[in-house]
Amino acid sequence: MAKVIGSVVSTQKDPSLIGRKLMIVQPIDSDGKPVRSEEVAADTVGAGIGEFVLLVRGAGARKATSKYDVKNDVNDCSIVGIIDSFDK
Amino acid sequence: MAKVIGSVVSTQKDPSLIGRKLMIVQPIDSDGKPVRSEEVAADTVGAGIGEFVLLVRGAGARKATSKYDVKNDVNDCSIVGIIDSFDK
Amino acid sequence: MAKVIGSVVSTQKDPSLIGRKLMIVQPIDSDGKPVRSEEVAADTVGAGIGEFVLLVRGAGARKATSKYDVKNDVNDCSIVGIIDSFDK
Amino acid sequence: MAKVIGSVVSTQKDPSLIGRKLMIVQPIDSDGKPVRSEEVAADTVGAGIGEFVLLVRGAGARKATSKYDVKNDVNDCSIVGIIDSFDK
Amino acid sequence: MAKVIGSVVSTQKDPSLIGRKLMIVQPIDSDGKPVRSEEVAADTVGAGIGEFVLLVRGAGARKATSKYDVKNDVNDCSIVGIIDSFDK
Repeated sequence: MAKVIGSVVSTQKDPSLIGRKLMIVQPIDSDGKPVRSEEVAADTVGAGIGEFVLLVRGAGARKATSKYDVKNDVNDCSIVGIIDSFDK
Repeated sequence: MAKVIGSVVSTQKDPSLIGRKLMIVQPIDSDGKPVRSEEVAADTVGAGIGEFVLLVRGAGARKATSKYDVKNDVNDCSIVGIIDSFDK
Repeated sequence: MAKVIGSVVSTQKDPSLIGRKLMIVQPIDSDGKPVRSEEVAADTVGAGIGEFVLLVRGAGARKATSKYDVKNDVNDCSIVGIIDSFDK
Repeated sequence: MAKVIGSVVSTQKDPSLIGRKLMIVQPIDSDGKPVRSEEVAADTVGAGIGEFVLLVRGAGARKATSKYDVKNDVNDCSIVGIIDSFDK
Repeated sequence: MAKVIGSVVSTQKDPSLIGRKLMIVQPIDSDGKPVRSEEVAADTVGAGIGEFVLLVRGAGARKATSKYDVKNDVNDCSIVGIIDSFDK
């Protein structure tokens, strides 16, 4: 779980990252409190600043950004869902 | 090891996550004490709120949720067992 | 490195975990002092309570538990050696 | 996200690392503050000392350094972009 | 980055670990200060006690120890270089 807090601009980067929205995300707990340090995640669901999102890392992240061309995709962290609510 | 403490609702998400029960889990030690921060895990064994469960991450998590179609599954954390007891 | 401190019983679990000895392990340093939080690891070398062991995670863990059928094995942490001594 | 703070020289190393610029990087948050401990990352975009960069780990790192020969590449951390700005 | 501080002896272990030098390593920063907890890493470059080394984890570690037979190699942490100097 994380909160989208901004984005990074990077012109000099791996070709596979071109055209991707690279968001700054702050991992959170289900009360919205920050846990661990910020990360950069490629957005795949149209998440906006301030929204709570689902993150995946590693090969799962590449499957989200490159449905069919994971072979050359260097990405290792993706936003794969926007959280509507936490039910506890 | 973790304790199930709730679930998240997410309508805008990767297609591979549709139909999955996405649970909020609190990693614990064998005394039930919380360790590290909460995570979201896809349930594969019918775990309920308050139950202690076994978690796996990465490719193992995808093998649990997508027996036969891991190729497009973005999931990276799954509940794969309900703990009956800790024997120490 | 870890110390075996117990085991977990789980009847409702992923089929690939059936028949496995799921041990509770406490990661340690080479002085035997606890570091980080406890984990569950599948035993593959007959480790007993109180023994110091070698752990591997991820795909390496599946190679240890499922020599020939990693395809359906959800496991992501295995005991792969019993430590006789730490030489420093 | 990380800041490049130096480089390491290593003559006795795995063949797949020969010819690579191995940089010392300090993970940071989006305010440039250090978070977690330093790491070594293979540069793939010409990053210099003092620049803020994007890091990827695991298989993604190998895809960045060995576009076509990941099979023998042992690398597990790569610099894959130079950050121009953090927009929050 | 890590410092080699010793080795472990393990006779009862996964076959793929037989014949490997299993070293105790202390992760460090570029000032040689300890960071995080100790780990066990398979040596692939002839590193000795007291030397600063490059570590890789996961599949990269297996590519270093089993150039041609990663299929059965359970290893998930390898020493892949001896650090001559840190340039900052």
